[in-house]
Amino acid sequence: MKSFQGKRHTEAEYINGILEGDRTILSKAITLAESNLAEDNALSERIINALLHHTGNSLRIGITGVPGVGKSSFIEVFGKQLTAAGKKIAILTIDPSSQKTKGSILGDKTRMEELSKDPLAYIRPTASGEKLGGIHSRTREAMLLCEAAGFEIIIIETVGVGQSETSVKNLVDFFLLLMLAGAGDELQGIKKGIIEMADAIAITKADGDNISKSEIARKEFSNALHLFPVSENGWVPKVVTCSSLEKKGIAEIITLIDDYVVKMKSNGFFNQNRKQQNVAWMKDTILYSLQSAFYNNTKIKSVLETTIQEVEAGNKEALLAAKELLAAFYKNKS
Amino acid sequence: MKSFQGKRHTEAEYINGILEGDRTILSKAITLAESNLAEDNALSERIINALLHHTGNSLRIGITGVPGVGKSSFIEVFGKQLTAAGKKIAILTIDPSSQKTKGSILGDKTRMEELSKDPLAYIRPTASGEKLGGIHSRTREAMLLCEAAGFEIIIIETVGVGQSETSVKNLVDFFLLLMLAGAGDELQGIKKGIIEMADAIAITKADGDNISKSEIARKEFSNALHLFPVSENGWVPKVVTCSSLEKKGIAEIITLIDDYVVKMKSNGFFNQNRKQQNVAWMKDTILYSLQSAFYNNTKIKSVLETTIQEVEAGNKEALLAAKELLAAFYKNKS
Repeated sequence: MKSFQGKRHTEAEYINGILEGDRTILSKAITLAESNLAEDNALSERIINALLHHTGNSLRIGITGVPGVGKSSFIEVFGKQLTAAGKKIAILTIDPSSQKTKGSILGDKTRMEELSKDPLAYIRPTASGEKLGGIHSRTREAMLLCEAAGFEIIIIETVGVGQSETSVKNLVDFFLLLMLAGAGDELQGIKKGIIEMADAIAITKADGDNISKSEIARKEFSNALHLFPVSENGWVPKVVTCSSLEKKGIAEIITLIDDYVVKMKSNGFFNQNRKQQNVAWMKDTILYSLQSAFYNNTKIKSVLETTIQEVEAGNKEALLAAKELLAAFYKNKS
Repeated sequence: MKSFQGKRHTEAEYINGILEGDRTILSKAITLAESNLAEDNALSERIINALLHHTGNSLRIGITGVPGVGKSSFIEVFGKQLTAAGKKIAILTIDPSSQKTKGSILGDKTRMEELSKDPLAYIRPTASGEKLGGIHSRTREAMLLCEAAGFEIIIIETVGVGQSETSVKNLVDFFLLLMLAGAGDELQGIKKGIIEMADAIAITKADGDNISKSEIARKEFSNALHLFPVSENGWVPKVVTCSSLEKKGIAEIITLIDDYVVKMKSNGFFNQNRKQQNVAWMKDTILYSLQSAFYNNTKIKSVLETTIQEVEAGNKEALLAAKELLAAFYKNKS
């Protein structure tokens, strides 16, 4: 295999390198997708589009939970069980760079020590790029590139406190929420609406003195989820307990996900969901781009803060303010 | 009072009429706000902006629930208790014109017979205008006009199955979800995420044979809501039972809402929420307008379906498709 370090590769070199499973090339291609340079993006798009028919063959799993829930330990044990079964897995951690929480400030190699040395595992942080309440993450592109590189399971990890989760729900086949027993302070940080998005909830740290508390939490959440509206796919979210420390309950989660996939493939929802996600991603990208053009417009930037203050203070009606800003935008577009 | 019927009024006539509490003028002003004609909208905006300092003094309550939950009967009894206490109330029903459910196809006067004859109550349906997943409702404007006309409590009713609820949550001070006992088929229609949005859940039809079932449901939901993330306003959603038939539990709901308002006013969240809602409405209006310009563009209309099919089929990557559509949009704008 050629060494491409230190120079820009050709489109063909990226494509072939990724198809051969070259991790250095894969990492560089993800960096390219994340780049803010137009020429990098254009190249990245051509690469991804050329690889498109080699994507979509993995199982995409979203894992979320607030800092302290034990995500890294969980993914470490979960991932090791998958690689032990011979699976090639990629772990994309969404780095909430601009968020309050410092959940993934620690290097991912420190966080998942065993996995980071595992030849079957590939760990890559991606920037969350949350702004304007829209999606500007390149996680989807990173995921597709990993699929083309032959990874069979893609794990997308988020911290459960921001906008990322809605985006991630639109990326994955299965969405796992990690929770701690004791619905107290631990819950404060989690974003409203996430519980209703979960396909399964795993109560973590169900070991030692925590076992009975975890079992109570499991029953409570299980009862609660039965009160929720049933998904159109017919799946009733499951609640389980697990211990990363004692490696308990992890195999059961893998079985549960397998069961989900079998059911969703047989009722047609698996593919239907993927199709809907593709279109949703296109529309979200359009939405983000339109908003971005608006809010980055020089004229809008110069009047937005004052307008927001007037609207907040009740001195200008929201609808009128919106119309005035839109008029200013259309008049002052480059 | 002058009779304005049959002709277009001047701005001053609208403004004065509304401030005098003239319902004919109020109704015409709401129609003006809902109009698709630019000149009507411009007049409506001037009217609302002139009245702005007479708005914001009501308590705004959102009430939602699927068809069959007994919304009309509930609002009838709930509203009558409010008018009996001397309160002037306006009920804005969001008509899901383009939705599957036919929940409010029945005339509102038939649905709320007593209230519709009550001099202290004003009932008005407004179109939901749900398209592109955005907000195009004029419910906010209708609400502001009602406030300027002196209504002290504004009830906004939706059917709990569409996008409206997120919008309504952004309009109201208090969000009440009506539910039936028995988490079976009745729940199927409700939109995911609504339960986590509710400030209170009322289990309806808690009478006769249904009493014990309702009490069980109340306990279940109450337990479930305690597992949810706590709102930043510190309010833990309450679950109660009620019977419109026997007029039971309704006064308790009024007390509960009063309690909420006192707490939210004392912790500052009431005003903070209103301010955030104003800005959110402005931003949502901008978003809707930007999207609308895009999706109504002739060029986009001519290629969108084909592009969606390619993306769905996995023949074109979502990001690339979005970029191509955006390029076509910017190239072919009027």
